[in-house]
Order: sequence, then C-alpha cells, then structure tokens
Amino acid sequence: MRAVDIIQKKKEGKAHTKEEIDFLIKGLMDGTVEDYQMSSWLMAVCFQGLNEDETAYMTEAFINSGEILDFSDISDTVADKHSTGGVGDKVTIILIPLLAALGVKCAKLSGRGLGYTGGTVDKLESIPNFKCQLEDKDFKAQIKNIGAAISAQTPNLTPADGKIYALRDVTATVDNKSLICASVVSKKIASGANIIVLDVKYGSGAFIKTKEEARELADLMIRTGAKLNRKIEAVISSMEQPLGTHIGNSLEVIESVEFLKGNYNKDLYEIVFEIAGHTLILAKIAKDFNEAKAMIDEAIKSGSALQKLKEIIKAQGGNPDCTDNYNLFNVGKNKFELKAEKEGYIAKLDALNIAKACKLLGAGRDKKTDSIDFGAGCILHKKTGEKIKKGDTLLTLYWNDILPQKIEEAKGYAALAFEYSPVQPEAEPIIYREKEILK
Amino acid sequence: MRAVDIIQKKKEGKAHTKEEIDFLIKGLMDGTVEDYQMSSWLMAVCFQGLNEDETAYMTEAFINSGEILDFSDISDTVADKHSTGGVGDKVTIILIPLLAALGVKCAKLSGRGLGYTGGTVDKLESIPNFKCQLEDKDFKAQIKNIGAAISAQTPNLTPADGKIYALRDVTATVDNKSLICASVVSKKIASGANIIVLDVKYGSGAFIKTKEEARELADLMIRTGAKLNRKIEAVISSMEQPLGTHIGNSLEVIESVEFLKGNYNKDLYEIVFEIAGHTLILAKIAKDFNEAKAMIDEAIKSGSALQKLKEIIKAQGGNPDCTDNYNLFNVGKNKFELKAEKEGYIAKLDALNIAKACKLLGAGRDKKTDSIDFGAGCILHKKTGEKIKKGDTLLTLYWNDILPQKIEEAKGYAALAFEYSPVQPEAEPIIYREKEILK
Repeated sequence: MRAVDIIQKKKEGKAHTKEEIDFLIKGLMDGTVEDYQMSSWLMAVCFQGLNEDETAYMTEAFINSGEILDFSDISDTVADKHSTGGVGDKVTIILIPLLAALGVKCAKLSGRGLGYTGGTVDKLESIPNFKCQLEDKDFKAQIKNIGAAISAQTPNLTPADGKIYALRDVTATVDNKSLICASVVSKKIASGANIIVLDVKYGSGAFIKTKEEARELADLMIRTGAKLNRKIEAVISSMEQPLGTHIGNSLEVIESVEFLKGNYNKDLYEIVFEIAGHTLILAKIAKDFNEAKAMIDEAIKSGSALQKLKEIIKAQGGNPDCTDNYNLFNVGKNKFELKAEKEGYIAKLDALNIAKACKLLGAGRDKKTDSIDFGAGCILHKKTGEKIKKGDTLLTLYWNDILPQKIEEAKGYAALAFEYSPVQPEAEPIIYREKEILK
Repeated sequence: MRAVDIIQKKKEGKAHTKEEIDFLIKGLMDGTVEDYQMSSWLMAVCFQGLNEDETAYMTEAFINSGEILDFSDISDTVADKHSTGGVGDKVTIILIPLLAALGVKCAKLSGRGLGYTGGTVDKLESIPNFKCQLEDKDFKAQIKNIGAAISAQTPNLTPADGKIYALRDVTATVDNKSLICASVVSKKIASGANIIVLDVKYGSGAFIKTKEEARELADLMIRTGAKLNRKIEAVISSMEQPLGTHIGNSLEVIESVEFLKGNYNKDLYEIVFEIAGHTLILAKIAKDFNEAKAMIDEAIKSGSALQKLKEIIKAQGGNPDCTDNYNLFNVGKNKFELKAEKEGYIAKLDALNIAKACKLLGAGRDKKTDSIDFGAGCILHKKTGEKIKKGDTLLTLYWNDILPQKIEEAKGYAALAFEYSPVQPEAEPIIYREKEILK
C-alpha cells in the first residue's frame, strides 16, 4: 500500500477501505506517511467527501491512535458534552456543576480557543489559580470524589486527530463534515464517557452557517456514534446572536455564576435545559423532560448547583470566593457604552461582529502561543427582538491596555453588529427541533 | 498575506493574483510556506485549475527561483527541445548532433528517468565514461566550441519546480496541465534557449492519454511562452507504440547511432524531421520544411551528423569509438525471442506493456537512488501494421542478472503488448497535425 495511491483514489472520488484509512492514520503517526501527503488527501476529501463508513473508520483510527479513558470502575453512566463552538458559549461552566449536583458523573474534557474568543479552558483559567491541566489519575479521582471535573484535553487522547487538526487549520481543510465529525466523536469516545450530548451550532457566530448543514453534521455524528456502539444525542441551536449576555473570559464565568444563582438569560437557559434534559434522561435520572425541568430548577433554586461549582473550583485549585466577590476576577478597567441611535427594535445582533470586537480587545487568540486578556469582552444589554429608545445602552465593551486604534476598530464592529427595525422582528427559536435528527 | 487564505481561495475556485502566486513559491523556498500547505494547494489546483494568467505567473515564479542561463554572448539563436516523455524516445540523441551539424547552437538540458525507462541522461551514461553533469561554464564552453552540449539539469535552475515536482510525485497531483506546463516551460526558459520546440506525446506509453489533452497542453505551453516573450513550437505525436525499434538505455543509443548512419525507422525519422524542421526554420537556417528536409538528409548522408555526435561524446569524456564498436556498450548477455503465435497483422503494439517488461528487466527505476541496468531492454522486430507469419520473431528481450521470476513476468508483459488482426489495420499517423495549434 502506498500513500500516493490512496490519495489518487480519493481524488478520483472512490471510497476507501478500513485498511486504507488505518494505513494513512497509522502512517501519519509513525512517519511513513508525510504531513504533505496527509494535507493533499485532506484537500481531496474536501472535494470528494467521505461516506459514513469511511467517516467511522477514521473516527476509530483516531480513537486507537492514543489512550482511551475508562471510568467503568466509577460509574456506568459518565456524561460528556461537546459544543461545536460559538460566541458567548459558557454552557459547560453551568451544565457540569448542575448535572453533577443532580448525580450525573461528568468527565468533561475541553479545549482552548483559537479564533475570536477563548475556549472553556481559557474561561475557567480566568478564575485565579484555577488549574485545567489535570493528570488522568487526578481527573478520575475528582470525578469519583465530587462527581465532576473539567480538564484540558491531554495530547495522549486521539493524538492523530491533534496532528490532523493542526494540519487542517493551516491548509484550508477545516470545513468538511466528515473530518469535523471524526474529530469531535473520536475525542468524546476516547475520553471515556458513555453519555454524549452534542450542541451543534449554526449561524453567524458558528463555523456552520445554516440549520441544514448543522442537521447534516449532527446526523452524521449520531450515526458515527452508533457505528462505534456509542449513544450520542445532538441539540441543534442558533448562533446568530451571541449566547447569553456576557462575552469574554472572566465575564462569561460571572454570567455562569449568576445563572446558577437563578439570574439567567432565557436563551441560555433553554440550551442548558435541553442538554441537561437529554443527559438526565439518558442517565435514567429523569424519566422525561418535565421531570428533568423540575430537577434542574430545584438544583438552581436550592443552590446545590452553585455549591457544586464551588467544589469544582476548589478541587481544581481556584478560589471559590470568586462566586460571591466578582472583584477577584480580571474585568477590563476601561469601558465604552454603545448607545442606540434611534427608537425601534433590534432586528439583528450579529454574533460574528461582536466576536470580532471582543477579539480586538484581547479576548481571543490567533496562535496557541498568543496570550489572552481575561478581562476583555462585552456585556450585551439588549438582544434581538428587544424594544429600544434612542440613547439606550446597547452594550458595554471592557478592555485593559491595548492600542487606541484597536479600541476604535472594536467599537466599529460593535456598532456594525446591531441592525434596527421599526417593527418587532419575528422571534427565531434558539433550539432547532426536528425529531428525526434526535432519534 | 497568509498561505491558508490563498489555499482557501483556490479551493473556492477563485483566480490568484501574481502576488499570491509569488507569495506561495517564494514562501516555499524560504520556508514560510510549508510543504503541507503547498501540497494542499496543489490538490485544490487539480480540482479547480489555474487559468492562463496564473499558469504564466507560476512559470515565471519558477524561473525566478533560481539561476537563469544566458547564451547571448555565444549566439542569438540557441535551441532546446523537450519531450513530455515516452517509451523508446531517443530523439534528443539524434536531434542535437544533427542540428549542431547544420549550424544550430544546441543547449540541451535533460533529466534522469523515473518510472518505466531511463531518461536521456541515463541513456547517454550507457556510453562508457560519458559525463552528463556539466558545470555551467563547461556547458557553455562546449556549446561555443562544438555547437552542442547535453547536460543533466542542475538544481540551480528552477529549484522551486524541483521542490514542487518532488511533492507532486508523492501526493497524486502530477496530472494537471497548468502544473505540467509551468514545470516544462520554466525549465526551458531558465536554461537560456530562445528556440524551444516541444514534443507533446499522447497514448498508451505517455502520461497524456488522448490527442485532445495533448493538444490542450501544447496550446497552453505555447501561450505561456508567448506571455513570457519566448517563442515555443510544439509537435504532437503518438506514443501508442514505442518509438523506433530499440528500448532500453544502451540499445537506444545504438539505434540513435544507426539512425545517423542512415538506417532509420520511419516513425522515428518523422518525429526527428518534424522537430528539426521547426528548429531550422525558427533559426532562419532553412526557409521551409522542404529546404529543411534536404539539409537533414544531407547531414545524415554526408556523415556530418554522426561526426558531431562523436565530437559531443568525446567532449563529454566518452569513447567515440562506441559508434563503430557496439561491443563497448553493456547489452544484456541474456536474450529471449518472442515468437508470433499466428499469421496475420500486428493490430496493436502497446507501449506501456513493453515499458513494463523493460522495467522488470532493469531498464528503469522507481526512486532516484535505484540503479539502472543499461544493458536491459528489448528490440522490436515487428511494429503495428506489419504482416507476420506464425513463428516470426516479434521482439527480443535483453537482460543481465535478475530474478527468474522477473524474467517470466517481463515475458508476460511483452506477450500482452501484441494484439493480432487477420486484416491490415489502418495506419495511425505518428504526428498529429492541426495547424491552429502550431501557430
């Protein structure tokens, strides 16, 4: 078998055997297949696609390229969740303590962010001294002891995906649904969870732009899970406007804490409820969504979910007092309030432009080695559909020390994000439901 | 400018600017663009193509990546020729001394072969002590002194093409006409010739399979030359059956010597005449093909072309006595004669199967570091259209020391190469003429 022949085969649109996919992935890891052969094959895949069998072979090859975590000695039901990413997506920080408070063991592996805003790991690291780089044994011990842990992905899990993702990122081969599916599903399976709920986002602030594409990707991930004997549920949600009200690393943790105190934004609640509901049902803790809702609301009302977040923070070296004293967070010392130019309704609040503004203020990074300012970001005071009067504050930008030119650019993007309408726009649901996808 | 954005642009089928092509090629050479980015872009090019402007930008970027030879102090008309490659193609060995004998300065840079049979450099090295690796100054001095030199390409010319070709070879991105065009035309322009005649081959033994594709490639190379102010002529010729009668390194040199002694195969004569004719007219030595034909025939008849070959061999360290004493060549000590199974006509003599047989006997190489047996190859006694009787010898295979299993395999391919017909097949012309191409 030669890599060049496998590349040629895909170039001609032919399907690969399991042996061919294994040859490529193993070869990449042992150096017998070169990076430049892999990237050429990845580009051919972007044009010709992979069928469902090939996608499952690739997912399996990723899983087998590294360590596979096993929690069977802790519990039969260990949950994990994954979001395809969006602006203001702090769901993990709310969901994990909430589920753990309700008795679901949660083994959450998260990533750092590349692009406009930080990833969950970056957000949590805005809690002073919070440690995300857990050793496998500490990760496992924490799940056993307090029911949940959130750790940065180790390079020991699915290293082939790590290598291929790094290649895709710089060779314009990110946007293929089979490649995305193999990357996401392999990581979730290798991380040992047996209850997996995916949040597949579409819209301006997501890399998937339409509902239809999100549905296709969700469908493929569910089927790939099934081929590998793992039950996966998927929620499809809109990322046209940012999720919740706070964007930026410290600010998103603060919003998460407020959520667990019962002060929540409606859209954010809906997504948390949807994912938590699926998980509680799969874990056989709730029998249906009605029961799940009652449990979720009670965990918030009683403070048990907030208490669990404090436990997680403490277990991972952070100061749990931050949940009561937000002054312990780095929040940008400089502010700018964007005012409404006229009366009417917010017709659109574009997630991508908000993300660009936050990135310019220091909330995101381009390269792994770039630093992030946890204090940079923004708070949205008005969201799509809300009525506004001229002079109302639409959002507040926060930053520390950056070039004046970048601040002006950020203000420009923030202003661009808002579109006005004289009439109230029709509300777009945040969750896209189509029962046949979620089966 | 970022490589990933340029790759994305081509993936979406958009055209590049000159600056983008330069960025990629310069970046590849200085290490700011990675091999895996280039190979991904090359695959996108295979799907989306390059337009004529992009092809010319790429050709120019290849030329500017290295040294550019200059013969303007020797002559205003220095000729070079290039063949896209085929089985039994020994045209260079005949053409260069022939043209030099007629007063055309010839600066011929040739390659080694990868694949089924050797390249011109390999063939010439079957002449004992013949040296093909000439320094620029020696190459130039020889052209000045005796009118012609044939040297292996130095890595100083079009190094970007060298690097990209090596990538294409292992990433299944060889077969794109713009990439082929840029590779060929850049080398010819950088090698300093101002009269360039290309032999574009199609058919079983060529990598281009149809007349139409050969015409498109020839057309693109002519237009690319024009964009870079270089006049290029192209001959389109059939490679359905091997060219001439001898295949293999030593054997092809022997056939070339015989040609210059006046003992030539008709098809081989036609191609030599066509290329030499174009060159003599472009060099303003002959006014038309009729005059060119008379000059060519006279150079053969008078022995002046053969004499020039001897001078070239001597100048490059070889023993010119080999043209009279073929025992000085390594010709395989073992032989096998393939006999006709029945009476009739040869309907087809497949170049690719003959090439495979010769390769198995040792005439070709897969990797640059593989060795070649100059003595391996075959002589064809019958060609397409010829009448045969049962038991006639169709071809003789030659080899030295190889595994018996390979000999049997080679015999198998040789037998497979022949198709019989009870009636005489219609003759296919060796040269494909369509005047609008050659304008």
